Amino acid sequence: MDFELSDEQRAFVELAEGFARHELEPHAAAWDKDHHFPVDVLQHAGALGFCALYTPEAAGGLGLSRLDASLIFERLAMGCTSTTAFLTIHNMVTWMVASFGTSAVWSRFGEGLTCGQLLASYCLTEANAGSDAAALTTRAQRVGEHYQLTGSKMFISGAGSTQVLVVMARTGGTGARGISALVLDANSPGIEYGRAEHKMGWNSQPTRTVTFNQVKVPADQLLGQEGEGFLIAMKGLDGGRINIASCSLGTAQQALNKARQYMQERSQFGRKLAEFQALQFTLADMATELVAARQLVRFAASKLDGAHPDAGTYCAMAKRFATDVGFKVCDQALQLYGGYGYIKEYPLERYLRDTRVHRILEGTNEIMKLLIARRILAEGSGEL
Amino acid sequence: MDFELSDEQRAFVELAEGFARHELEPHAAAWDKDHHFPVDVLQHAGALGFCALYTPEAAGGLGLSRLDASLIFERLAMGCTSTTAFLTIHNMVTWMVASFGTSAVWSRFGEGLTCGQLLASYCLTEANAGSDAAALTTRAQRVGEHYQLTGSKMFISGAGSTQVLVVMARTGGTGARGISALVLDANSPGIEYGRAEHKMGWNSQPTRTVTFNQVKVPADQLLGQEGEGFLIAMKGLDGGRINIASCSLGTAQQALNKARQYMQERSQFGRKLAEFQALQFTLADMATELVAARQLVRFAASKLDGAHPDAGTYCAMAKRFATDVGFKVCDQALQLYGGYGYIKEYPLERYLRDTRVHRILEGTNEIMKLLIARRILAEGSGEL
Amino acid sequence: MDFELSDEQRAFVELAEGFARHELEPHAAAWDKDHHFPVDVLQHAGALGFCALYTPEAAGGLGLSRLDASLIFERLAMGCTSTTAFLTIHNMVTWMVASFGTSAVWSRFGEGLTCGQLLASYCLTEANAGSDAAALTTRAQRVGEHYQLTGSKMFISGAGSTQVLVVMARTGGTGARGISALVLDANSPGIEYGRAEHKMGWNSQPTRTVTFNQVKVPADQLLGQEGEGFLIAMKGLDGGRINIASCSLGTAQQALNKARQYMQERSQFGRKLAEFQALQFTLADMATELVAARQLVRFAASKLDGAHPDAGTYCAMAKRFATDVGFKVCDQALQLYGGYGYIKEYPLERYLRDTRVHRILEGTNEIMKLLIARRILAEGSGEL
Amino acid sequence: MDFELSDEQRAFVELAEGFARHELEPHAAAWDKDHHFPVDVLQHAGALGFCALYTPEAAGGLGLSRLDASLIFERLAMGCTSTTAFLTIHNMVTWMVASFGTSAVWSRFGEGLTCGQLLASYCLTEANAGSDAAALTTRAQRVGEHYQLTGSKMFISGAGSTQVLVVMARTGGTGARGISALVLDANSPGIEYGRAEHKMGWNSQPTRTVTFNQVKVPADQLLGQEGEGFLIAMKGLDGGRINIASCSLGTAQQALNKARQYMQERSQFGRKLAEFQALQFTLADMATELVAARQLVRFAASKLDGAHPDAGTYCAMAKRFATDVGFKVCDQALQLYGGYGYIKEYPLERYLRDTRVHRILEGTNEIMKLLIARRILAEGSGEL
Repeated sequence: MDFELSDEQRAFVELAEGFARHELEPHAAAWDKDHHFPVDVLQHAGALGFCALYTPEAAGGLGLSRLDASLIFERLAMGCTSTTAFLTIHNMVTWMVASFGTSAVWSRFGEGLTCGQLLASYCLTEANAGSDAAALTTRAQRVGEHYQLTGSKMFISGAGSTQVLVVMARTGGTGARGISALVLDANSPGIEYGRAEHKMGWNSQPTRTVTFNQVKVPADQLLGQEGEGFLIAMKGLDGGRINIASCSLGTAQQALNKARQYMQERSQFGRKLAEFQALQFTLADMATELVAARQLVRFAASKLDGAHPDAGTYCAMAKRFATDVGFKVCDQALQLYGGYGYIKEYPLERYLRDTRVHRILEGTNEIMKLLIARRILAEGSGEL
Repeated sequence: MDFELSDEQRAFVELAEGFARHELEPHAAAWDKDHHFPVDVLQHAGALGFCALYTPEAAGGLGLSRLDASLIFERLAMGCTSTTAFLTIHNMVTWMVASFGTSAVWSRFGEGLTCGQLLASYCLTEANAGSDAAALTTRAQRVGEHYQLTGSKMFISGAGSTQVLVVMARTGGTGARGISALVLDANSPGIEYGRAEHKMGWNSQPTRTVTFNQVKVPADQLLGQEGEGFLIAMKGLDGGRINIASCSLGTAQQALNKARQYMQERSQFGRKLAEFQALQFTLADMATELVAARQLVRFAASKLDGAHPDAGTYCAMAKRFATDVGFKVCDQALQLYGGYGYIKEYPLERYLRDTRVHRILEGTNEIMKLLIARRILAEGSGEL
Repeated sequence: MDFELSDEQRAFVELAEGFARHELEPHAAAWDKDHHFPVDVLQHAGALGFCALYTPEAAGGLGLSRLDASLIFERLAMGCTSTTAFLTIHNMVTWMVASFGTSAVWSRFGEGLTCGQLLASYCLTEANAGSDAAALTTRAQRVGEHYQLTGSKMFISGAGSTQVLVVMARTGGTGARGISALVLDANSPGIEYGRAEHKMGWNSQPTRTVTFNQVKVPADQLLGQEGEGFLIAMKGLDGGRINIASCSLGTAQQALNKARQYMQERSQFGRKLAEFQALQFTLADMATELVAARQLVRFAASKLDGAHPDAGTYCAMAKRFATDVGFKVCDQALQLYGGYGYIKEYPLERYLRDTRVHRILEGTNEIMKLLIARRILAEGSGEL
Repeated sequence: MDFELSDEQRAFVELAEGFARHELEPHAAAWDKDHHFPVDVLQHAGALGFCALYTPEAAGGLGLSRLDASLIFERLAMGCTSTTAFLTIHNMVTWMVASFGTSAVWSRFGEGLTCGQLLASYCLTEANAGSDAAALTTRAQRVGEHYQLTGSKMFISGAGSTQVLVVMARTGGTGARGISALVLDANSPGIEYGRAEHKMGWNSQPTRTVTFNQVKVPADQLLGQEGEGFLIAMKGLDGGRINIASCSLGTAQQALNKARQYMQERSQFGRKLAEFQALQFTLADMATELVAARQLVRFAASKLDGAHPDAGTYCAMAKRFATDVGFKVCDQALQLYGGYGYIKEYPLERYLRDTRVHRILEGTNEIMKLLIARRILAEGSGEL
């Protein structure tokens, strides 16, 4: 076993840290306030390779491991949780198109996705198919050389401001096996975008409903085979869970750093907050749980990289634990700030709002528990 | 012992419920979004007596007990947490002026405060005197028949939109005993209001810095005697803690009701959420802790009404417990809503944002723990 | 509402306190160590009326309310958790026989049960009918003027050392409606007692399996009507839950008192433990949750006394919350004692062991959650 | 980074598993009941190298890393927590003598310690020097070629049944720098052993007070230099914390395994417990936190192996988190067993009792928080 970062990993981490500090953090509060989607900054991230971290090098990506990507996302999230979270979705889509698309498709979308000139949204959730994704009803009907896409997707990150969509749609019967994945131009005729949702956080990325009215998608823009969509989605989700967990880690680390600094500067009752033992204990618990969460995320990422049969379970554990701990650390940091934690002049309340959704998306933490329990209770299953 | 509401209490509770349902709830989301301070609705509340609930009848108030007031605030908070919270502050100020002001002062401000035509802000906190309120530095210098008020107050609810201020200022030496309380016209020359703070929640009430530049306050607008200000503030806080705890209870009850309803309507995996046992358990825990918190708040309010020597400790317990439980219940209700809980089309995320500050103000929950521990560990102290 | 004890309640509480201090506490450690069932002390308790607290006065009991009984059990448990817990079971049985037995039955058992000369065990649980009590298979077959009782009961408190049994047995078909309740002489021919279980705690009361081999029970020793047994059992359980919750409250209060005293005496790093802020916060949390739990228990007991339609739900809440909080408080008190908390020279580890089972029996806390959720989610149900 | 066990590590883990299954688990309940110290089994463990896991190979040990040792202790603890915990103490002493003793000392004690023929106790804690170990008052006075040892040690594991003692005693002035470490024959004249403490758990190892009355210790049996005792003790503790954390991990894993099995076998309400969703969620949380704790322990052990400057902080985190999680998992497993969890026929209640002390010893978890906070708040400190 070896828990140390390699020199290459350290270099990527430093690159990400610098980007976070200079390109994200100074603007994060304004993006949150103005609901601004920072396309230029995302493209800049793309120029550094951050739009295709674990896309194979052969396809133009950095070809990093999921573990490497986790290290990078964690650092980026220290600058802006919401923007980094969008970036993780974009990375997932890029990887999906590279891994399951034909070379024709890749030649159409690959370069743009890789360098961030084409930004991507991932269209899975529907109004009545949230946790139960396999119940989706959006339909892709094969008509000659095209699929005709009809239905409606909800809570789609980036929608309306992105150029590429990956859509999960039903090409066959009910259930998971009737689902296929398509990639398409986000400006295709027949696509309508709803108004931007007003959300608690994640405000630097727009969230919209996407409605498909007999949208024509070239048949070769199918990812994988017909009926493989749910499988592809699930594969994407394992990595997505690591990614979102990493965003929680980074935000919580930033919150912890801020709280530490505040405790060293702020005095009450004639003493620095740092001298109050009960607050020290709170800080110690925050740090301990965060370090535990980080190790669990890296462990799970490593299992995913190694295609371990229990990788999915470990990813579910990492997502559940790190997003819960991340939120809790942000909440405690806000509390340490007192009234200052509650106003937008300081980033603490944003950290809380932004990390809140991590416990819900990429599969709610309740779904994570179901997945974990199912594995533990499966016949003949061993220890985890 | 008797845990049942009297007929009179039931009548007030119903009145408050009706007001919450018809006058607050339909507008709460808009007030939050637009940062609108609903003066007309507050005046309407005043017309029903809600601006002077526990101000003596002789002075024109309803003369209710703190326990009665708690019941009413709880119900009002079901409609709008933030507006009700402002109302609790106004009630505290009204009571303070009625209890400690001269009859001359009361004739100047009393009727307006009682009926809500004059709204009031409470100016205690300063940038460097938050938890350590006794360290405040705003100075009131006696000059002839006036006090000359100089200094700056922070996080003042309602400031800039209210007509009356109660200000804690130093008339004597350092420490708690050098502090006096003054009531004054909020438009007095020399008062400057800062820009409205951007906050996480509590958006239906503006929060501003208030700066006093040699503001002249008639000497008879002193509340109590010189040097009694901190004592008055602390007396106010005991009730204030019950009040804010009550706001948490009401919001959490509303969140629980919404979650219950959602679980009965929303289906996933072919079953109502209400049929999933793990979600049932969550709901049961939410309800259990909420009922426990409510009983604790009522118990503490009753102790305050009875001037029990441990009333302050019980109020601290109630504030700590009910605001923590209230936030937790709102957080769990949001989680049960899934993605819908995160968007502003539904009130769950607002409940979370609004109740978050209750753990901080009226004395942070950390200060509550200090107070409780101090009492428990005091020499010769008995059981609580 | 009124949260104060009446003079009569205070008198009972003081009586119980004295009994706990003088008759229970000095011996509790030895009883635990020697697994001694203190029959003489139970009879002494009976002489004071503690064996029939809420049995009607007409039947020779004290005729107290459930709330009164809760106050008394709480204080008794401060002296010995396990012995008090047995006493609560005995009280339940006495009440059951008085309430549902014929006058002939009462003339046979009543006086002995009331004064504690006859101690009683309650036989509900079976090896395969724990949480699912309605699945019990012990059979009572009517044969002429007798029932013939056959089957086996498990985890029976006091069994082998008591003189009276109340047994839930099946006289009809499957399900709850086929169950009847019988009271019988514990020495009846055909009853076999298993060996005393080795338990984690509750060692001052023996726990045994009771096996019935065609035991003849006079038909008039039926409680209520045939088929009413489960209903009687459930009625008993509501009170039983209040009782066991009260035992947790008292033990936790004692643990808190000990921890407070220890913190004031023990020094480390040149300071009393009482001066360490983080430990102060722990103490404050222990006290706060305990006071909340106590209020919830009293509230539920009062609802039970008033036959409120939601009394059962409130009893379930009280049992769940107070037994969880009670265990937690004992655990934290042990931790404050450090190494001394782990050795039997001090009572802390016994408090932990004794209160551990309260989360399991009288319906596990998981069953409580089911009951609470069922009520909340029932059609047309209102707030709790 | 690499999270996989090497082939050699797997081999050791399997060896330990086999030993736990065959030599420990079948007897653990009896040892607990009879307070039996299984010397023969410890010697058998010694024959396999388990008495000197991380003692250098040159000195006759296995020369494993702390991480390797953690893997082994974790597996051994699955068989018997208490016996394995003793073994970890013995390993620490063996390592201490090998690392800091002269070759003369090693030739006297080394072989016996290494193979387990000489078992060792570690004498640090005193009645008034628990968490504040540097306050110890046991005195070692240099008299010619001997130290004369006088004082009293408390809570000494194995005392009275071991052959070797390492004692921390004061050779100089007050504070940490006045402390030295001595190794001596446990049967030296002037040593008196108190009666075996009655403890909540850890019953397979005796715990006694050890009193030294002018005990003569050859001067060359000093470990390190005079005044280095506290430093040596602290170095020992870092590893000791990993070890005790590992014992919690193993016990919790065993508890989880038992709970899983029980849920698959036990039926209530006509369904296996495994089918109840709320219990599934509990199981999932147990597993998730356990996996996180395990990763944290391994991470900290690795840092200790690499002599990382923050190793001590990571060890404190690992100890705090893994012992808290371990206890919680055991507690939840007991709860899943219901009444069966409370009786000694099943091991669950023993797991709870045995792991309870892990939160107290090797530095209480409160001391861990102090250490962690001190590091975080130190001037110029970086992220952890």
